[in-house]
Amino acid sequence: MDKKQVNKTAIEEKEGISNQKSTSKHAISKLKKKRQEQPSTTALLEGVLQGNTTVLSRAITLIESYKAAHKTKANALIQSCLKHQKPSIRIGITGVPGVGKSTFIETLGTYLTTLGKKVAVLAVDPSSSLSKGSILGDKTRMDTLVRNPNAFIRPSAAGDTLGGVSRHTREAITLCETAGYDVILIETVGVGQSETAVHSMVDFFLLLKLAGAGDELQGIKRGIIEMADAIVINKADGDNLTAAKLAKVDFNRALHFYPAKASGWTPKVILCSALENKGVNMAWNLITDYIRHANKEDYFTKKRQEQNTYWLLQSIEEQLKNQFFQDEVISKELKMQLELIAENKRSPFAAAEYLLSLHKKRS
Amino acid sequence: MDKKQVNKTAIEEKEGISNQKSTSKHAISKLKKKRQEQPSTTALLEGVLQGNTTVLSRAITLIESYKAAHKTKANALIQSCLKHQKPSIRIGITGVPGVGKSTFIETLGTYLTTLGKKVAVLAVDPSSSLSKGSILGDKTRMDTLVRNPNAFIRPSAAGDTLGGVSRHTREAITLCETAGYDVILIETVGVGQSETAVHSMVDFFLLLKLAGAGDELQGIKRGIIEMADAIVINKADGDNLTAAKLAKVDFNRALHFYPAKASGWTPKVILCSALENKGVNMAWNLITDYIRHANKEDYFTKKRQEQNTYWLLQSIEEQLKNQFFQDEVISKELKMQLELIAENKRSPFAAAEYLLSLHKKRS
Repeated sequence: MDKKQVNKTAIEEKEGISNQKSTSKHAISKLKKKRQEQPSTTALLEGVLQGNTTVLSRAITLIESYKAAHKTKANALIQSCLKHQKPSIRIGITGVPGVGKSTFIETLGTYLTTLGKKVAVLAVDPSSSLSKGSILGDKTRMDTLVRNPNAFIRPSAAGDTLGGVSRHTREAITLCETAGYDVILIETVGVGQSETAVHSMVDFFLLLKLAGAGDELQGIKRGIIEMADAIVINKADGDNLTAAKLAKVDFNRALHFYPAKASGWTPKVILCSALENKGVNMAWNLITDYIRHANKEDYFTKKRQEQNTYWLLQSIEEQLKNQFFQDEVISKELKMQLELIAENKRSPFAAAEYLLSLHKKRS
Repeated sequence: MDKKQVNKTAIEEKEGISNQKSTSKHAISKLKKKRQEQPSTTALLEGVLQGNTTVLSRAITLIESYKAAHKTKANALIQSCLKHQKPSIRIGITGVPGVGKSTFIETLGTYLTTLGKKVAVLAVDPSSSLSKGSILGDKTRMDTLVRNPNAFIRPSAAGDTLGGVSRHTREAITLCETAGYDVILIETVGVGQSETAVHSMVDFFLLLKLAGAGDELQGIKRGIIEMADAIVINKADGDNLTAAKLAKVDFNRALHFYPAKASGWTPKVILCSALENKGVNMAWNLITDYIRHANKEDYFTKKRQEQNTYWLLQSIEEQLKNQFFQDEVISKELKMQLELIAENKRSPFAAAEYLLSLHKKRS
């Protein structure tokens, strides 16, 4: 598939990039018609269970829809998937733009398929609605994986809040696991609190870094180091190799200064060159080491349960806040209260009481 | 004042420990009667403005009350205080039990009064309602400061949630500033999220530590190091001195590995022996250095504004959550939903939707 073709198949891209060759105009119009037909929940579930990537893509599009009728159907679909979900390993991958996430994911994904695994790639990018998708956007960078029959790549989830994006990604995980994917890679560019969101939906969290000019921890977002189960120093090749080795020493020392993790796992630092195809197998070995460790400590299932509780409470809190702050009258009054507080004419607590009583009257 | 006397004056303690000698039975019964009389908001404000510690104590007791009539009055009092608040420096002090917080605060407080400053000591301890007050409880440890006419010590704020305790402490700060206290020391033992609460109401946050057996950062709660503007290694005397010096090197190295602070301030580590009266002046110099730095960067006022916004939003969120989760039907249903999720029979999002719709019907 060359670049031109990729551009032509924009609709397919929205539907997820499958390995199926339906790039002709005819196929696209057929696809459009099919979409209007709205297959039943049962048909969607069957297709997903068969591992049909076109159906999987459509199912993900359905769960991303905000239309009331779609939402009801999406809920029913997810509900019916729950008992079919297959065991998987969920891996979160973060790193600033330019760190080589796409190449890393492509190399790791391809390697995993050579081990006989089915790999799904999802992305959490709350900025995508503004920037039109900064991650997984340039499909040409995942050229090989896109054409791999055992891989499924889904661009950034749609949504206007991080909560929405997160929910869609969490449900896309459920769909991919129902479709039998063994490894789910979830990428984030780290806008806002998106790393926290991804960290709260994966088993293993991996931070990609480049070797810099000495002070490695400057410029790293607060809280990221604490979340990482592994730090991968990427592009450790050619002229970068010496700097990368120094960075490894630095990060190892840094990790020593962070409190111990609840899992009892000691985060590791490894060097990687996706370009030279070096280190990706080490990353995978590390992940399987972790899974063994977590299973031994009975932590793997416990963590997933905790994550479920987190998402339940998180969803409730976000909804409660949305109902409050998205009220036009409240949002206008909030502005005025903040001004009064800034002028020291009102205490923040009195302002909160006032806004809450206003909200109560209005609901 | 000996221990016996302290026990006898329990009522006074609740009213705050003042320097006034009203320990006789007669005085107590007069105080009780006075309390029933309920002075007006104007009378309270006047007394506070005059720096009358008995009135200040009564005002704090008023803001801690959960009775509706008291709440209205408390709100009016705080509102009337706002334009009278004097500039102050608010310092948060945290550290595990046994680290020597009380002695440190007593030494620092006494030192500050010798510099001509009026010092107020407050405490945030969400556990106190259970444990009957673990901090500032043993007044005998602050023997000197208690009798100092330029010091005001108030035991743990009452409240059944951290939010309640925090609000009471924040409002007690307003009252103390209205009464003309130059430095407000706020102590916390670090239960739950209480450090975060204290950190969000002070200008400078100080972590007290003891030199341990090598691995200094093990056992430190997550997130505390990031919050600290200074780490004070306490009891750096006698046999501890060598270990304390090593700990200082260790912490300095550790701090280097944490991301830079929004204030642009580099946290410092100092050694202190409250027992030998060493280092407390260094701690104060560090604090004034910070204030100079923050003022130069225009950060001091900005931070307080941000804290006010934080407390406004925080209060709203906590109230919204309380209204939801304290509903008996919701809390019963929540339990059932969590069981369904654990058995993989329901997704956390579907459970959240169900509970939210239930809540809507009930409100």
